[in-house]
Amino acid sequence: MEQSEPKTVAFVLYPGLTPLDLVGPLQVFGMLALFTPEFRPVVVGATKDAVPADVPIALSAGATFEEVPHPYALIVPGGAGPTIKSLGDKHLVEYVRSAAETAEVVASVCTGSLLLAAAGLLEGRRATTHWGFYQLLEKLGATYVPDRWVEDGKFVMSAGVSAGIDMCLHLVSRMAGDELARQVQLFIEYDPEPPFGRIDWTKIDRNMMAPMVDGWVAEGLQDNPELLARLGA
Amino acid sequence: MEQSEPKTVAFVLYPGLTPLDLVGPLQVFGMLALFTPEFRPVVVGATKDAVPADVPIALSAGATFEEVPHPYALIVPGGAGPTIKSLGDKHLVEYVRSAAETAEVVASVCTGSLLLAAAGLLEGRRATTHWGFYQLLEKLGATYVPDRWVEDGKFVMSAGVSAGIDMCLHLVSRMAGDELARQVQLFIEYDPEPPFGRIDWTKIDRNMMAPMVDGWVAEGLQDNPELLARLGA
Repeated sequence: MEQSEPKTVAFVLYPGLTPLDLVGPLQVFGMLALFTPEFRPVVVGATKDAVPADVPIALSAGATFEEVPHPYALIVPGGAGPTIKSLGDKHLVEYVRSAAETAEVVASVCTGSLLLAAAGLLEGRRATTHWGFYQLLEKLGATYVPDRWVEDGKFVMSAGVSAGIDMCLHLVSRMAGDELARQVQLFIEYDPEPPFGRIDWTKIDRNMMAPMVDGWVAEGLQDNPELLARLGA
Repeated sequence: MEQSEPKTVAFVLYPGLTPLDLVGPLQVFGMLALFTPEFRPVVVGATKDAVPADVPIALSAGATFEEVPHPYALIVPGGAGPTIKSLGDKHLVEYVRSAAETAEVVASVCTGSLLLAAAGLLEGRRATTHWGFYQLLEKLGATYVPDRWVEDGKFVMSAGVSAGIDMCLHLVSRMAGDELARQVQLFIEYDPEPPFGRIDWTKIDRNMMAPMVDGWVAEGLQDNPELLARLGA
């Protein structure tokens, strides 16, 4: 029997990102790959050299952008200041744009959706991001929806950081069926018990990070007048 | 005013581990470090070179074991076959033993507790691990408790992979107070919504992985007759 090529799920690595945005989803798809040869996760970056994250660890991609031009699925993690700065990284944004064009599934975690939006992919779409960055998503033409994850056509976007795990279990169920998604959940023992329960959103001011975000925009995009004009305070 | 030295929270990196075990907790303590200068997370390893994980990404430590001999807190992540093989890694196990001796908090995620046990630290203690590896924990002298996390004196151990996030939010509350723990939870947006709800443990056979685990023990510990005799089928 002829074996078909596995479908590539590409995770985008870039300097300064929030590594849990990438590693949570990667662990989900890595576990899936143990159960079925149909999917192959790969981390792609501008370089295979180690790049720093927003916590003191460095991560190395398994392939360059050029080596994986047409993944089946693209997953774009986020971060804080460095991700805002990356909105002006032409090599990165152009890879996101071109890979997303041919991908059948395009996903983001946290502020990864800002990279999708900066690539012109979310104009007029429903989308989500980390609660503290929603204004930037709207300034880039998307409609912010404060859900754990949001689907609009082939685009699937999650809320901040840890939300990538929930979203990717949903993606696995869509791409490989409920049974495998439940099996992945069991093997990564995703049976959450936050010690203080869930977040009470009625007590959260989603604008509380705005001054910090404005600072990251002013600093990170000072060499990109066009983006600065769209995203500045 | 004199500023006291920050307390070091050391995360142990070794080849083949499950990176979510390390990165979830690291993101929790990395966020805490943004809110208080009292704690400083650092990833320690036998080398600062990139080491492979059990999914296709490589991770680099920020310091060697020798550079961080006496952390305030020690956090040991787990993994599958490679972690079992690591039980025979004298350099790693000796670091865990000596660092744990002086640390005020010693924590593990997933099968990281097997490394604590192999270092002789869990004899007669209540402990936990990934559900599929509980027999090994008991063979190493601990009493398995199937909770999300288990505390016994200065030792705190979590269940598999994703459980490290819950445990570390608990650790933050213990080390820095409830308010900061809630703030970390908000900023990593840990508001879990597993698409299929929580795991129904009444339907899970915790022995289903035993043949696989026995294989990893036989293969990974073939050069360590003593450990093989304790852990073998």
